[in-house]
Amino acid sequence: MATLRIGLAQMNPTVGDLAGNRALIAGLYAEAVAAKCDIVAFSELSVTGYPPEDLVLKSGFVRDNRIVLEDLAKLTGSCIAVIGFVDRGIGEQTSSGQPVIYNAAAVCSHGAIHGVYHKRHLPNYDVFDEERTFAPGSGEHQIFEVAGIKFAVSICEDIWRADGPVAEQARSGAQVNININGSPFHSGKLMQRQEMLSGRARENNCAIVYVNQVGGQDELVFDGSSMVVDAAGKMLARAPQFATGLTVVELDLASTTNALTTVAPISSRYEEMYGALVLGTRDYVRKNKFTDVVIGLSGGIDSSIVAALAVEALGAEHVHGVAMPSRYSSDGSQTDAYALADALGIDCQTISIEPVFEAYLAMLAPSFAGREADLTEENLQSRCRGQILMALSNKFGWMVLTTGNKSELAVGYFTIYGDSVGGYAVIKDLLKTDVFGLSRYVNERAGREIIPESVLTKPPSAELRPDQRDDQSLPPYDILDPILALYVEQDRTAAEIIELGHPEDIVRRIARLVDLSEYKRRQGAPGVRVSEKAFGKDRRLPITNGYRG
Amino acid sequence: MATLRIGLAQMNPTVGDLAGNRALIAGLYAEAVAAKCDIVAFSELSVTGYPPEDLVLKSGFVRDNRIVLEDLAKLTGSCIAVIGFVDRGIGEQTSSGQPVIYNAAAVCSHGAIHGVYHKRHLPNYDVFDEERTFAPGSGEHQIFEVAGIKFAVSICEDIWRADGPVAEQARSGAQVNININGSPFHSGKLMQRQEMLSGRARENNCAIVYVNQVGGQDELVFDGSSMVVDAAGKMLARAPQFATGLTVVELDLASTTNALTTVAPISSRYEEMYGALVLGTRDYVRKNKFTDVVIGLSGGIDSSIVAALAVEALGAEHVHGVAMPSRYSSDGSQTDAYALADALGIDCQTISIEPVFEAYLAMLAPSFAGREADLTEENLQSRCRGQILMALSNKFGWMVLTTGNKSELAVGYFTIYGDSVGGYAVIKDLLKTDVFGLSRYVNERAGREIIPESVLTKPPSAELRPDQRDDQSLPPYDILDPILALYVEQDRTAAEIIELGHPEDIVRRIARLVDLSEYKRRQGAPGVRVSEKAFGKDRRLPITNGYRG
Repeated sequence: MATLRIGLAQMNPTVGDLAGNRALIAGLYAEAVAAKCDIVAFSELSVTGYPPEDLVLKSGFVRDNRIVLEDLAKLTGSCIAVIGFVDRGIGEQTSSGQPVIYNAAAVCSHGAIHGVYHKRHLPNYDVFDEERTFAPGSGEHQIFEVAGIKFAVSICEDIWRADGPVAEQARSGAQVNININGSPFHSGKLMQRQEMLSGRARENNCAIVYVNQVGGQDELVFDGSSMVVDAAGKMLARAPQFATGLTVVELDLASTTNALTTVAPISSRYEEMYGALVLGTRDYVRKNKFTDVVIGLSGGIDSSIVAALAVEALGAEHVHGVAMPSRYSSDGSQTDAYALADALGIDCQTISIEPVFEAYLAMLAPSFAGREADLTEENLQSRCRGQILMALSNKFGWMVLTTGNKSELAVGYFTIYGDSVGGYAVIKDLLKTDVFGLSRYVNERAGREIIPESVLTKPPSAELRPDQRDDQSLPPYDILDPILALYVEQDRTAAEIIELGHPEDIVRRIARLVDLSEYKRRQGAPGVRVSEKAFGKDRRLPITNGYRG
Repeated sequence: MATLRIGLAQMNPTVGDLAGNRALIAGLYAEAVAAKCDIVAFSELSVTGYPPEDLVLKSGFVRDNRIVLEDLAKLTGSCIAVIGFVDRGIGEQTSSGQPVIYNAAAVCSHGAIHGVYHKRHLPNYDVFDEERTFAPGSGEHQIFEVAGIKFAVSICEDIWRADGPVAEQARSGAQVNININGSPFHSGKLMQRQEMLSGRARENNCAIVYVNQVGGQDELVFDGSSMVVDAAGKMLARAPQFATGLTVVELDLASTTNALTTVAPISSRYEEMYGALVLGTRDYVRKNKFTDVVIGLSGGIDSSIVAALAVEALGAEHVHGVAMPSRYSSDGSQTDAYALADALGIDCQTISIEPVFEAYLAMLAPSFAGREADLTEENLQSRCRGQILMALSNKFGWMVLTTGNKSELAVGYFTIYGDSVGGYAVIKDLLKTDVFGLSRYVNERAGREIIPESVLTKPPSAELRPDQRDDQSLPPYDILDPILALYVEQDRTAAEIIELGHPEDIVRRIARLVDLSEYKRRQGAPGVRVSEKAFGKDRRLPITNGYRG
């Protein structure tokens, strides 16, 4: 009987933590052995974690990763392990004299490495920089055999190319393709992967085992959702999204009626986004050895949703709120901040910024003599709040979570070194309209009012001058956000957006604000990427930029 | 007579400013015509400025740049212009469905484009990301002819490959290779270029016309130093470093005794560094539409050298000093700050941070009850200074120049949102030992004491607690800097540096500090790159990083 028992090992490595990752791989391998798997596949670069970025330019690091791989190979018995690592070419050098390295997968069993596959197609777009560090693989494909079944190994991008290695390997006889991935999440990507895998399987009459990493790494979140698709393109198994663990799948190649062994449900848009933000935040905080976070609670929707996500990520006892009222704060803001803290079960303290704000005004009065009050005084207030948060961070070892959303970051509606201070920017990739949507989801999910209804319905305001409202400075978010989606996420020029029918004066002003704010965003904290183009390494625009198209 | 009159057009474009760059090209073309040049070569991507980064992912931008090129071609007469631009492949698409674009050079004369060369070798290492956006050129080489001389065109990286297009073009008959560049400066690079060009000319028995961009673009500075090398590898002309303008060279291909028409002198290490820092700072400030800068003057060497560089870049009337003493400031610091301001002829005001510092301490006292004073209070002082600088920046429209050096940034010996605030970090790529060297050069150059001798000789201190000195927290800079050079610039692991004989305890501690400070550096301002590996886009290490090698 042509049946294969396959373990999909969804692990959450820490980039660079070779000893830690080795322990995770060894643990999941033992589970796979206990579950009588014929083969267990780990994610892309599982030894180093993905993406290792320029760490792999350290030849000492590459050597150390190789030692871990060899140790792991020695642990293997009859269960075959497919392990991702960085391989070094023997005697090869780049044009600049560096050693040639590959993004590689080793096929190990019975204490030995039986073959190594080098990734052929290196993504070098969006968040990916693989051509920067790796050389592409080449040469003949190696076909392996287990339990009478022929299989091949490929890595991530390789399978996205219809005319790539997966087709070649199938032509060489592979009945199963083990494809290991470090595929970062963005909204809706899971469906794209499924469609592609189904198509690729059918085209090549080859079953596909797709294994993906789980966890947060700086601005990226990996969502797991490993899958097995049979040669007819039918989904046999899908491992959970955002969760680690071993999923075991029985693949009967002779049968066209494989049972749907384990298929995790598909999440809604906000459910999926929620999962990504929670995991990304938890991993950034914990992998950087923090336990607690502090959040400035303004009574607004942004800080409210960030607090709710932080509580889910870290536990209420690890989240600390601070209300920092000024002369311009409404009573409602304080009430709403405490209502939220109560609903979440987190502590909250109040520190008025008035004494320092007044001290700054007095101290600067001689320098500012004869000048009107302007944005300077608004920024001062925001920076007093930032200072307080950082002082609490320094004194108690809490990481500051900053609360800016993508709409604000895009147009520069924030104060650099003020409300932007912090180690992690949880919702930096959510347009304001998504902040509202996600907040409603949080309340629905909880079955009660976590984020107070008054917070959801009051007009957004920075409360930096009397009766200030966001819509005095910015167009309403339902007009702003679609323009930002086009300008920022889809690389349209202002002229093109105007041609699409958006109002010229607004488009020109917004485009200019986005360009002018580049320098401020560049000094901001990283945060979870949930869109196809975030303000992160997927968007590399010059600060000095004279284009006005 | 096989003589060619060649114009090397060293221009300082602004990235994205298509109309401005067009005007620069047209102006230099007119100069070349007036100088009776047969041919004039502009630098790489002269229409867009280099590097345009992700701007070229906007198809509207690529279309607009093409219009500018066509307009420029129409201006041409018998003098041939070689102009860099972004070309779009006709009907070609990338695997992700984007239009294929090329880093290209157009050969124009008599109102028309006669040929377009597509760069073959796309650098995708260090600060370069060209494979991210461009496709490599391919196909047969086009050989052009002027005044009976055959020439070919190549772009930057192409000429660094011994087996690259320059050799092929020579085999196809090219007697002259016009190589256009966007080659960023680092210390000592000019000599590397000269050696390479000499060798390449000799290998191919082909004269080389090397034209490079001038000017600052975010963290990069382009130093010009365009050159002409004859087929024997002899340097015939070198245009000035860091200066724009047209250099005209008469190249007699029949002669082996070409006159050294114009050879700008080679600068010393600090002279060159000084030029790079001045130009980089001037261009960042001005291209971003600022006229004035403000600098916190501590009486220390870092802020002193930054002020001296700013005065050279912008003029004394555009540079504003602020002394911000606290209870821990020595009298000498104030005296030194004012002595420097006097020597430079800049204004200086004093704003004591005491009132706000005390207000913060009082305000935070309830939250900090029962806790000892620690780094929190030191950071508070630094952040009060940052706030004052930003308030002055906001009120008067002055850009803050921040004064941290590479040694401090490396080990995290600075306060995020404190002394690190600012739009541009002038000396961020200078190790402290180079800060001393450059400061002595500034005084030598001026022939008088710009930077007070007392500043050069007193032990460095942050003055954030009584009798604080840098060497209480850090090893002496002559021990620290060589370790940093190995760890940060040369990608050695801590283990490797210890093997080289550096003390284990110091190396381990320094390496750990460098890794732990990644999150702080990431939120810092850009600054001029002068080394082969700066804290910029040439060093992409993860923040979350478990490697302890």
